[in-house]
Amino acid sequence: MTVAIIGLGSIGASVGLAYQHSVLTDAVIGYDIDPEALRGALEQGAIDQPADSVAACADAELIVIATPPKAVPEVFQHLAPHLRPESVLTDVVSLKQPVLAWASAYLPYPNRFVGGHPIAGTEQSGYLAARADLFQGAQWALTPTPKTDADALECVEQFVRALRAIPIRINAAQHDREFALLSFLPHCVAFSLVALHRAHPTQLRGGGSWHSATRVAQSDPELWAQLLSLGREPTAEWLTKLIAHLERFRNALQQGEPEVLRALLR
Amino acid sequence: MTVAIIGLGSIGASVGLAYQHSVLTDAVIGYDIDPEALRGALEQGAIDQPADSVAACADAELIVIATPPKAVPEVFQHLAPHLRPESVLTDVVSLKQPVLAWASAYLPYPNRFVGGHPIAGTEQSGYLAARADLFQGAQWALTPTPKTDADALECVEQFVRALRAIPIRINAAQHDREFALLSFLPHCVAFSLVALHRAHPTQLRGGGSWHSATRVAQSDPELWAQLLSLGREPTAEWLTKLIAHLERFRNALQQGEPEVLRALLR
Repeated sequence: MTVAIIGLGSIGASVGLAYQHSVLTDAVIGYDIDPEALRGALEQGAIDQPADSVAACADAELIVIATPPKAVPEVFQHLAPHLRPESVLTDVVSLKQPVLAWASAYLPYPNRFVGGHPIAGTEQSGYLAARADLFQGAQWALTPTPKTDADALECVEQFVRALRAIPIRINAAQHDREFALLSFLPHCVAFSLVALHRAHPTQLRGGGSWHSATRVAQSDPELWAQLLSLGREPTAEWLTKLIAHLERFRNALQQGEPEVLRALLR
Repeated sequence: MTVAIIGLGSIGASVGLAYQHSVLTDAVIGYDIDPEALRGALEQGAIDQPADSVAACADAELIVIATPPKAVPEVFQHLAPHLRPESVLTDVVSLKQPVLAWASAYLPYPNRFVGGHPIAGTEQSGYLAARADLFQGAQWALTPTPKTDADALECVEQFVRALRAIPIRINAAQHDREFALLSFLPHCVAFSLVALHRAHPTQLRGGGSWHSATRVAQSDPELWAQLLSLGREPTAEWLTKLIAHLERFRNALQQGEPEVLRALLR
C-alpha cells in the first residue's frame, strides 16, 4: 500500500517512522509546506520520497493529513481535483466534527474519508520531536459516519494497528466532547496557571506538582488557539463545570469546612 | 552529629537514605508510630537505630520531624520535657506559619527550631516510596525568624546541603503564599479534574496532558485535607484568582474572540 503523509510535524513524522518500523515499506510519500521539515523527515527516515505539492500526494492509496487544523480545508481543496475514487483519506486533528464538515464540503468522495485522532503526543512540535513508538498502546479514535465506506474504515483501522495504536470507533460529537474534557480543559488550566505565576513571580521554584500541572503550557500557542477556537463550545462547557467545582473548593476553604473539604478530595 | 528522624514516610525515610548516602554515618535514629514503617526504614537503611518513642529521640543533636502536619504539635509536646538546650530541631511540613506558631507554643527553646520544607516529593507516600536522590538539586526552604539562633540555622543548612538540596532562606508567610500557588493550587485543580471525570466518564482514555494534570490527585487525601485546612487562606485566594482567569478563558471561547484567546495563550 502506498501511503502519503501531508504535514510532517511531530505527529506526521511519527506516523511515518512508526509505519516504516512496522511494515518495512519504502512507499511512504511525504509533503510539508516547510522545505526544512520535508528534508528533515526524509533524513530521519519518516518518509522515503518527498512530494513537491499536496496534489502530488493524491495518487497514494492512503492519504494521512497531519497538518495544523486550519490548513485542512485548503489541503482538501488542493487534493480534490486529483483524487481517485478508491483512495482512502484520514487525518489526525484533535476535533472531529469540524473536519467531517470540511470533508463533506470539499472532498469529491467524502465516504472515503475516515476522521482519525491519535490520543498521543507531547508538548513538543516539529519533526525533531517525532518518535517511532509514539502511538504504542495509545488509543486512536476513528469517527466513521453512516456514509463512510466499510472498506475505507477497515483500511484505516489496519493502518492504525500497524502503528501499534488501538483503534476506537466513536461518534464524532462524543469524541469532541470527551476530548475537550481530557485535553482541552487541562491545557486551559495549564496556560492559566502559568499566566497567574507570570503575574505573581515567586522566589521558590515549583516542584513536581507544578511541573506536571503546567507542562503542556509549553505547547505551541498558535496550534492551541486554532484548536480551542474549533472546540470552543465543549471547552467552554467544561470550563463552566470546572469553575463551579473550584468554587466549591474555595468556599469550603473559606468557610473552614473540613468535612466538605474531605468529600471534595475523595 | 547524631540525627533523629521522627516520622518515616516517603520524606522522612528519604532524608535518612540521602543523609546516610552522603555522610556515611551510622548515627541516624528513627521513630515512627507505625512499627511496620520503623522496621521497613531500618531494613532499607534509612535509619540505623530504631527508637521506641518520640521522647527517645530527644537526645539527638539534630531532630528532623517528618510526620504528617497534624501530628507535629503532639511531637513537640512529647519532646519538650526531654530536650537539651543545644539540640536543633527542624521539620518538613509544606506550610511554615502554623509550625512556627506550634514551636513557639510548645517548645522550651523555640530559638533552636528552624522551619524547613523540601520542595520535593511525589504523589506516593510511605517509606517504600523513599529515594536517596529525592532532594538532589531541589530547593529546601528554611524559614528562620529574627529569634532563631544563627548556629541552629547553619546546622540545618549544612544538613540540607548534605542531602544534596539547595537551602533557600525565606519568610514563612511568603513561603506559604508562594507554595499555595505552586503546589496547593495544582492539587486542588487535579482533585477537581478527577471529580469532574468521575461525574462524566469517557470512552476515551486521557493522553499525556490528562495524566500530567491529574497525577497528583493520587496523593493521600487525608494528608491533603490537613494541608489544605492549614493553608486555607492563601489557597482560597489563589483559587479566586485562578477562577477569574478561567472565566476570562471561558468568556473568550463563548464569545468567539480569537485575539483575546491568543492573548490568554501567550
